[in-house]
Amino acid sequence: MKIAIAQLNPTIGDLEGNAQQILEAAQRASSEGARLLLTPELSLCGYPPRDLLLNPSFVSEMSRVLLKLAMQLPSELAVLVGTVDLNLRSLETGGKSLFNSVALLEPGKIKQIFHKRLLPTYDVFDEDRYFEPGNEANHFTLDLGSTSIHIGVTICEDLWNDEEFWGKRTYSLNPIADLAQKGVDFTINLSASPYTVGKQKLRESMLKHGAVRFNQPIIYVNQAGGNDDLIFDGSSLVVDRRGNLVCRARGFEADFAIVDYDVEKQDFLPSSIAPEPDCEEAEIWSALVLGVRDYARKCGFSKVVLGLSGGIDSALVAAIATTALGAENVLGILMPSPYSSDHSVEDALSLAKNLGITTQKLPIADLMNAYDQTLEKLFVGTPFGVAEENIQSRIRGTLLMAIANKFGYLLISTGNKSEMAVGYCTLYGDMNGGLAAIADVPKTRVYSICEWLNCRDTSELIPTNILTKAPSAELKPGQMDQDSLPPYEVLDDILDRFIHQHQSATEIVASGHDSTIVDRVVKLVTIAEFKRRQAPPGIKITDRAFGTGWRMPIASKRPSY
Amino acid sequence: MKIAIAQLNPTIGDLEGNAQQILEAAQRASSEGARLLLTPELSLCGYPPRDLLLNPSFVSEMSRVLLKLAMQLPSELAVLVGTVDLNLRSLETGGKSLFNSVALLEPGKIKQIFHKRLLPTYDVFDEDRYFEPGNEANHFTLDLGSTSIHIGVTICEDLWNDEEFWGKRTYSLNPIADLAQKGVDFTINLSASPYTVGKQKLRESMLKHGAVRFNQPIIYVNQAGGNDDLIFDGSSLVVDRRGNLVCRARGFEADFAIVDYDVEKQDFLPSSIAPEPDCEEAEIWSALVLGVRDYARKCGFSKVVLGLSGGIDSALVAAIATTALGAENVLGILMPSPYSSDHSVEDALSLAKNLGITTQKLPIADLMNAYDQTLEKLFVGTPFGVAEENIQSRIRGTLLMAIANKFGYLLISTGNKSEMAVGYCTLYGDMNGGLAAIADVPKTRVYSICEWLNCRDTSELIPTNILTKAPSAELKPGQMDQDSLPPYEVLDDILDRFIHQHQSATEIVASGHDSTIVDRVVKLVTIAEFKRRQAPPGIKITDRAFGTGWRMPIASKRPSY
Repeated sequence: MKIAIAQLNPTIGDLEGNAQQILEAAQRASSEGARLLLTPELSLCGYPPRDLLLNPSFVSEMSRVLLKLAMQLPSELAVLVGTVDLNLRSLETGGKSLFNSVALLEPGKIKQIFHKRLLPTYDVFDEDRYFEPGNEANHFTLDLGSTSIHIGVTICEDLWNDEEFWGKRTYSLNPIADLAQKGVDFTINLSASPYTVGKQKLRESMLKHGAVRFNQPIIYVNQAGGNDDLIFDGSSLVVDRRGNLVCRARGFEADFAIVDYDVEKQDFLPSSIAPEPDCEEAEIWSALVLGVRDYARKCGFSKVVLGLSGGIDSALVAAIATTALGAENVLGILMPSPYSSDHSVEDALSLAKNLGITTQKLPIADLMNAYDQTLEKLFVGTPFGVAEENIQSRIRGTLLMAIANKFGYLLISTGNKSEMAVGYCTLYGDMNGGLAAIADVPKTRVYSICEWLNCRDTSELIPTNILTKAPSAELKPGQMDQDSLPPYEVLDDILDRFIHQHQSATEIVASGHDSTIVDRVVKLVTIAEFKRRQAPPGIKITDRAFGTGWRMPIASKRPSY
Repeated sequence: MKIAIAQLNPTIGDLEGNAQQILEAAQRASSEGARLLLTPELSLCGYPPRDLLLNPSFVSEMSRVLLKLAMQLPSELAVLVGTVDLNLRSLETGGKSLFNSVALLEPGKIKQIFHKRLLPTYDVFDEDRYFEPGNEANHFTLDLGSTSIHIGVTICEDLWNDEEFWGKRTYSLNPIADLAQKGVDFTINLSASPYTVGKQKLRESMLKHGAVRFNQPIIYVNQAGGNDDLIFDGSSLVVDRRGNLVCRARGFEADFAIVDYDVEKQDFLPSSIAPEPDCEEAEIWSALVLGVRDYARKCGFSKVVLGLSGGIDSALVAAIATTALGAENVLGILMPSPYSSDHSVEDALSLAKNLGITTQKLPIADLMNAYDQTLEKLFVGTPFGVAEENIQSRIRGTLLMAIANKFGYLLISTGNKSEMAVGYCTLYGDMNGGLAAIADVPKTRVYSICEWLNCRDTSELIPTNILTKAPSAELKPGQMDQDSLPPYEVLDDILDRFIHQHQSATEIVASGHDSTIVDRVVKLVTIAEFKRRQAPPGIKITDRAFGTGWRMPIASKRPSY
């Protein structure tokens, strides 16, 4: 029996468009002889639909589109579609009014509905905000004429609670254990699992472990595409009963695959296996390219603009944007000030040449003078300081937005995670943009990705001088990042411990860092909260990004420990 | 038996400072002869602590401070303190690692711990993100020597699930029903219940209903103060067994009250009842003043700066800031352009005079010219449009931030909710600020609050001309808000239906609005999502504010319905 996997890239809320994608996949599946088509979690509305789910008319529209889709399906094909279902008992018994569901469609009808049982409510996930957990093992029987197969259905998190694999339980239930008891032939997992560095390896080993432990093949279908800060990396896969990988769809793009279930052997036959990225840099690069491409496309932009400082952050973002949208759709703006080094313009131009993108140069000295004159009386007698530095950054941010507004371009901001963490960035200045492409990429990783890029290509993409010169914001004469911050290797390790590992200052010092530096970094991270709150969405590549999953108070006082 | 209510205003995360507040309340309670002291939900860390709870060191520090507090308590006093407790079984059985708890302290020890049973996970609440629900009825016995009393403990949401009162259930359990079965003498509710317009009336009737239905007096203790976007309005209260209000603490400030429980009569005796606000405008005014005051104080600012355009929004915000922080701590900046009307400067100066605040005038024509010249070659042949309008707003935003940075002032932004909804505001321009004072106040309500202010005072606070002139952004000659937007009465009604009542465009049109206007407004609201994502925290006064409780996708496509 052939089963088709539609690794779709839906647009959030675009019910008709997403249904059309499913229908096209169904037609292809049918023409290739598949009996069953699988789509990702919430494939009809896209994941995450967030507060669109609070609008009853959105939910009823989803039901209407689902039924219409069922009416249009080719004959002899069953389709699993991710949708929501009403919890009709909620008014009477309490609980949320919706279920996160999968509908089993057969031509002309909705045959069965399954409810997600384990609802993630951590990091970027808010599923308890909308959904009631299902309380039944989900399975169905597919009639093949001569025989029938018994298939288990799980939705994303449902498979992420194996206490043997994780060494702990997150939820009291383990849905696949229930399905094993029901004697299903295999289990399907419809997911919308966001990308983080190394996560695909984890998924593969977890699914292999589950297949072996519960003696059943598993088909995992993931969403593809970028939705605001979240990247869904596809890489849907199938593991057979012994835990062998027998199919993997492409990473970081929509894909379609067919796998064959041998009813006699009661297992899946080997199929196509798309290659994995070579290294973490390659993986992150693909995620960032997809994130920029999809954010622009789904927001209706074809062209982007960004500031090119001659530094490494804007160099990387320019390279990402060029790959995502094409060199002809990227405009780089050089905005030198009297404090800019000679090489900053040269380096930016040489980068632009390598990338093949257009640039414009807009010197900001006159604007700096105009601000100085306007503020002269008010600022008289005060020394040059952060206020003046920020004005330069805000002039640049205003020029970039003027260009974005004038020509309908999307402005991409170029700040990295290390800067965002300690506030080494200007709100309403270099933080300006519709999307922060590398806001979750630490500075040391920015370097390693650029080095990887230069190794990958035969010709040098990022000019060597950009990679080798000392980083500087160039907001006052001779300024270097390292005058205000510890070396990035030190800073990034402290930040990793503080942000990702939830270590206290005491623990970080115990790991070998200088206590004065640690205290300063921790304080800077806390103080910068007000900036991060107003930052554009940043493409998430770690388990702890400054985005929808980072929920910190601003007006607060942290105990020192 | 005397019971003291400490309606505290904690700072989020300031464990030592908050413990000191509790200790001082305990000393006062003891000196006034109280046997029991009550504090709000999570009084030790302040509510909401948000992701501070994800740091294990923060949680263990809280335990240490709690124990230290117990050691310092005066003799003969029991104290209920809001804290978190570890869910030690979570690794084994699944579930979140913490409980939202109340500790019963007696001098030198933690005598008992109670766990919150109903965890709100909607709007701004994310309690399922951190907490496991408790599964026992919470009660304790207080030994009075000759006799003892049996007291039920509930935490905030625990009392918000009366299906008789609401006409529906939100949760399957009703903790007060369990407590009634246990035969408690009365029930305590320790809360951190955020303010919204009219909510106190709802709380009073709900608590009266609960007291009568379950035949038990209820003491409700609320947090006071502003924490980022949330205002906690205090107004703690006591209802007796028959549902009569016998005590109410002050609204919108910290307070301390003593109530007397008559053991013979098995009921509370009448005590002091603080007055309610006269009208909704008075209530909102108090909330906004508290919000500005606490945000500034808790972030370490004593002075604020804001732009004074001569319009009604900045007039109201200036009045709020002046009341919150004192006229000597408010600086108003006038930034006229060649498009500004003559009256805009006059009106702003007359407002400043009424308020007694200092102003500075910084004309922006030279800066506009400098931007025009810098962009001349790039923009050649394009007509004056939104790009040029936004430059003016961004010049003003940059000047305000320069002043804020230079002198260490907090910039307060002045946009209203109607503008924020439809995007009639400039990102990185007039949206700039650490706090958006009236971002949840619709324009029609801005007017009614200003009218109320002028009625309240013997002298006119808001100059009449500001109240009577047609609103204008003054970003091009002769521009009026109503050229781009429907009249505010119409706009605000559409927005109320769309945002607060979750109505679809079809439903709004059915209520009598023009379909072209409705479609346009709905579209504008959707498009403006990217601006709201980057807005500063706005003080929440409604059930559906654009803040931490508004979680919308940006890159999305809404179905038209």
